[in-house]
Amino acid sequence: MPPVTELETPCILIDIPQMQANIARMQAHCDQHGLDCRPHVKTHKVPEIAQMQMEAGAVGIACQKLSEAQVFIDEGFGNIQIPYNVVGPSKTARLADMALYNRVTVSADHVSVIAGLSDAAAANEIVLRVMVELATELERTGAPVSEVLQLAQKIDADDHLHFAGLLVYPSNPIIRPALQEALDALHRAGIGVDIVSGGGMDAALRVHEMPELTELRVGTYIFNDYGSVRRGLAALDECAMTALATVVSRPTSDRAILDSGSKTLSAINDKGVYGFILDYPDAILYNLNEEHAFVDLSRCDEKPVIGERVRIVPVQAGVVSNLHNQLFGVVGEAVEAIWTVAARGMVW
Amino acid sequence: MPPVTELETPCILIDIPQMQANIARMQAHCDQHGLDCRPHVKTHKVPEIAQMQMEAGAVGIACQKLSEAQVFIDEGFGNIQIPYNVVGPSKTARLADMALYNRVTVSADHVSVIAGLSDAAAANEIVLRVMVELATELERTGAPVSEVLQLAQKIDADDHLHFAGLLVYPSNPIIRPALQEALDALHRAGIGVDIVSGGGMDAALRVHEMPELTELRVGTYIFNDYGSVRRGLAALDECAMTALATVVSRPTSDRAILDSGSKTLSAINDKGVYGFILDYPDAILYNLNEEHAFVDLSRCDEKPVIGERVRIVPVQAGVVSNLHNQLFGVVGEAVEAIWTVAARGMVW
Repeated sequence: MPPVTELETPCILIDIPQMQANIARMQAHCDQHGLDCRPHVKTHKVPEIAQMQMEAGAVGIACQKLSEAQVFIDEGFGNIQIPYNVVGPSKTARLADMALYNRVTVSADHVSVIAGLSDAAAANEIVLRVMVELATELERTGAPVSEVLQLAQKIDADDHLHFAGLLVYPSNPIIRPALQEALDALHRAGIGVDIVSGGGMDAALRVHEMPELTELRVGTYIFNDYGSVRRGLAALDECAMTALATVVSRPTSDRAILDSGSKTLSAINDKGVYGFILDYPDAILYNLNEEHAFVDLSRCDEKPVIGERVRIVPVQAGVVSNLHNQLFGVVGEAVEAIWTVAARGMVW
Repeated sequence: MPPVTELETPCILIDIPQMQANIARMQAHCDQHGLDCRPHVKTHKVPEIAQMQMEAGAVGIACQKLSEAQVFIDEGFGNIQIPYNVVGPSKTARLADMALYNRVTVSADHVSVIAGLSDAAAANEIVLRVMVELATELERTGAPVSEVLQLAQKIDADDHLHFAGLLVYPSNPIIRPALQEALDALHRAGIGVDIVSGGGMDAALRVHEMPELTELRVGTYIFNDYGSVRRGLAALDECAMTALATVVSRPTSDRAILDSGSKTLSAINDKGVYGFILDYPDAILYNLNEEHAFVDLSRCDEKPVIGERVRIVPVQAGVVSNLHNQLFGVVGEAVEAIWTVAARGMVW
């Protein structure tokens, strides 16, 4: 394989030793707290990388969409959680096909979602594993705690559904009283809870305050990103993903333009910063167009020249993987693996 | 082909009659002002769509990256402008290979960029067409007006380069004095200017104030987007691209969650708004996670139910195409074409 110096830019590099260290550390963290580790593969979308997470001790994987899950099922993955409301007859039929042999667990936050799952499971003559999602301070999906028991009972009473537990995102300690209330109600109703699945990067560091959890869904930890660094969740040298970019223009003494725009780094920013340039820590990546990155060099003593290559830690790793057809696994300046982002674009 | 009602969501619909009307209107606008129309294909990345633009009268196409251009060359496109500094020996060698038969014109804003182009052209024994990019108020790439003559002379004096004209982005009237100064200097030096290429959606509407232009590079006009609408450049019913999404959760009376997150719509927003929901004009799409769109329904009299499908006008069309493997060309509720986004992810 070509060395890093011969790769075309922009491209995405994954530091293999750092990624392996990140995998090992999160697995050890889960082991220490008696939690099953369930990596969310939406961060990388690469079956070979998910396999490394499984070999390190993960109990299974999480996928955010059916088409993403299908890619991993086709590669032989067997314990897949889809923490998402699967809605509509076409989607629930696909889910029921995937869920043969108990391979797939799904979540629901409403009776109408459960009814759709039941119909599809009945049509396929299977029993489908369904978790109930509890609403959190994120105010995204999830049922209020007052409805959790009713939803669980509906699943439990359905011949074609199995109540597989509770799901929370993020599982920050602020949600613990509601989680305890839901668990108490289920216990008093005589409904067993197999799994209490939490998730989120911040929440991962506070699982000791959430003893009700049995498993942790985490994605970004495998690469980390500048968003993690800015939130104090990772150090810069724990970031395994970088974008390799070339300086294509130096129009003024204080400005550089790189070939890594929003089609390379995504338009996600952290308070107006679109990534961190490792080679020029005082430079500020302050804007992106589709194929141009704008860099302010005014605080830099040394400044890059046209043609120079730099490495950028992206703000949000999971959307970056999804923009690229390949990720380049590197050890120092050697390319050791070229991974196809097999589940890229799998939003259906 | 399946009707729209049977497409899996999220997916991207292109209203074919509206797209054709947009193509015809921009071509007529260019014709009226005596300008060559050069569609920027980065907006759609689909050769079949570029072919429609050519058949409507376009002089050629613009591509933002080499790998994007290669896709269109492989499909037989022959007049391709790459308004970008192509930097580094590998990239310039690829460019020189593509530029056989005068198919490709490139731009440059610095002597070191020109030197690299010259070396590659000499190695391939071709003459490469090179434009000089003039800096604008955008403060992106481009040489200051004081350097344009020197750069043009360097190109003009090179046996393997041909000075192909000036390039400006955006070509708003504010840049006219600098453009006139550059043209005067070239004229006095006896250097002919084949092409003065402008670009930009706003600038397109003001070409009558920029009589120096000979051609217009425009991309977004083919679809329009909510960003165009917010800037007063297009009406909502002139937007040909919509994302078809499903309501997957209704956690509260005022909130809906759609299955179209930042991996479907991109994270680009216009002052905190991530798209416009045609079916619920009073709804506000106020946040995106990777696979979730957050909608505020508090101002809506009618509210969608779980499973309902809605159409969203994205904020920036060009980054949306790049996230998807297919675009669905529709006429009413019929799918008439499924276009592969052949140049998706082509950032090299």
